[in-house]
Amino acid sequence: MSSEGAKEDCLGWAARDPSGRLSPYKFSRRTVGSDDVSIRITHCGVCYADVGWTRNMSGRSKYPLIVGIVKQVGSSVQRFKVGDHVGVGTYVNSCRECEYCNDGLEVHCEKMVLTFDGIDTDGTVTKGGYSSHIVVHERYCFRIPENYPMDLAAPLLCAGITVYTPMIRHKMNQPGKSLGVIGLGGLVTVFSTSISKKEEALSLLGADHFVISSDVEQMKAIAKSLDFIIDTASGNHPFDPYMSVLKTGGILALVGSSEVKFSPASLNHNMRTVSGSLTGGTKDTQEMIDLCAAQKIYPNIEVIPIDYANEALERLIKRDVKYRFVIDIENSLK
Amino acid sequence: MSSEGAKEDCLGWAARDPSGRLSPYKFSRRTVGSDDVSIRITHCGVCYADVGWTRNMSGRSKYPLIVGIVKQVGSSVQRFKVGDHVGVGTYVNSCRECEYCNDGLEVHCEKMVLTFDGIDTDGTVTKGGYSSHIVVHERYCFRIPENYPMDLAAPLLCAGITVYTPMIRHKMNQPGKSLGVIGLGGLVTVFSTSISKKEEALSLLGADHFVISSDVEQMKAIAKSLDFIIDTASGNHPFDPYMSVLKTGGILALVGSSEVKFSPASLNHNMRTVSGSLTGGTKDTQEMIDLCAAQKIYPNIEVIPIDYANEALERLIKRDVKYRFVIDIENSLK
Repeated sequence: MSSEGAKEDCLGWAARDPSGRLSPYKFSRRTVGSDDVSIRITHCGVCYADVGWTRNMSGRSKYPLIVGIVKQVGSSVQRFKVGDHVGVGTYVNSCRECEYCNDGLEVHCEKMVLTFDGIDTDGTVTKGGYSSHIVVHERYCFRIPENYPMDLAAPLLCAGITVYTPMIRHKMNQPGKSLGVIGLGGLVTVFSTSISKKEEALSLLGADHFVISSDVEQMKAIAKSLDFIIDTASGNHPFDPYMSVLKTGGILALVGSSEVKFSPASLNHNMRTVSGSLTGGTKDTQEMIDLCAAQKIYPNIEVIPIDYANEALERLIKRDVKYRFVIDIENSLK
Repeated sequence: MSSEGAKEDCLGWAARDPSGRLSPYKFSRRTVGSDDVSIRITHCGVCYADVGWTRNMSGRSKYPLIVGIVKQVGSSVQRFKVGDHVGVGTYVNSCRECEYCNDGLEVHCEKMVLTFDGIDTDGTVTKGGYSSHIVVHERYCFRIPENYPMDLAAPLLCAGITVYTPMIRHKMNQPGKSLGVIGLGGLVTVFSTSISKKEEALSLLGADHFVISSDVEQMKAIAKSLDFIIDTASGNHPFDPYMSVLKTGGILALVGSSEVKFSPASLNHNMRTVSGSLTGGTKDTQEMIDLCAAQKIYPNIEVIPIDYANEALERLIKRDVKYRFVIDIENSLK
């Protein structure tokens, strides 16, 4: 805290101890540098990872996602002007020199700074999006098209890019290819351990099939039928059954946090692949936002006021949300 | 056995019960069809999988590899003539119609017939290479260049192609890329649990580095330094330490038989990939043989007579071979 600016002009909600209880908190953001954008935050998405950091459960996890309106720009900033709608994802800085930064994969840069609980290059502690404004280098700001609702844009910057990145990397967007998704959470669907999600998966979310993954017969019926699977599940689960429904040469992209354990035959008898992915770089993120705007793809959210944040985190623990909470910072954080 | 030909003109060594004890055995090969090649077997490689099948330990594993001299060809065979040096790998038939066959990936065909313990399309049981001759459709025969020693060619058809296939698939043969190999066995090297293999790895096999994988300091020193790893180890081993030495975006190709178990962070924090592979298709196999001949790449083998086969399998169990046994069928099976 010693490295913060003098004027505590930023209002946020923060947890102060492992109880994880959030309450109002005044702090400072850094002054706006020549390449920086100061953003008045209108909405902030809530991620399951927020449960972890508020309760000090993990050393390293994902952090809240922010969209807002540019309130001030640095003298060198060309891409944004005051009043623009912008988003900030899970990271706010990186070295901008390494091979990953050069490839637009800043999230893999050794010096990447997370949006929450990171130490920025000026020594200040980043403090996430449960707050009134944030100052971010323009490189890590994304343009939100004017016609895309701000509240719906927030989850795109975490859940959205997390799914989009492996889809692009592994060329899952080819016509005629089949895709399965493990875990009905952020944006997409198919496999679930809960029959209660079937109706929503098929009608609301437009999935072609719904499979109860613990049902051996249902899994057998789709053996070797899928080109790709995206595994978004946060809880530990077996892998061999899912591998068995992948075609020869099929790919499972892991974006969740289940421990991975399977028989070697699941991989090598069918030259299958398991590949990890973690949110995504700035290039993919902007492309994904633009695609969602052009194709009118919207996540399902529940908008909440900031003073509902503690209850929202409790509901996340009980998996009681369809499918993302978004905090209406603009109208509730005063 | 009922579907075999009438004339028992093929001499082999076979196990008859789970003791796995091999002894001489007379049987028939099918008559030579129009597309078939009859091969007088000169050498047969020994694979660790042979230990499994002779002792009835597994339902599905790899089988012996054969090289020999064409003794008869069918009327339609164009690619081979009597006297040619040919090799046969782990499979002798497939449907020749599916997408995998069309792509030269017959090993992944649903109807692929293994060289040992498979049921061929004519109903006969395939009986592997510990025998005087074999009849195989020409598609599954590979040309061994005249200048390539027959005994050295045998291991190429199992160990060789097993390593070559993922190298080609994952483009490991790019200049400047670094490759690690787990397990010093068939053809290649680096990581080992045994310091006793260091000298051979570096001098005889030409590895650049040798790392004791259980030594935490040695592994830390090469953290995030390798583009690729090929995992050839047959025993169960931890994966997280190996994942940690892969660069961001690095690939571990699994060709061994260790149960796979690792933390999700090993994959998704660095978008790493684990991909399986199993021997290889006919196209890659012929390319690999030709490359070995052109570049004078030879495996290290210990040539043994057929009546040493039982002792050889015992030594395999004790991991006492550098690095492949090859049975001199031509001079010892009478």
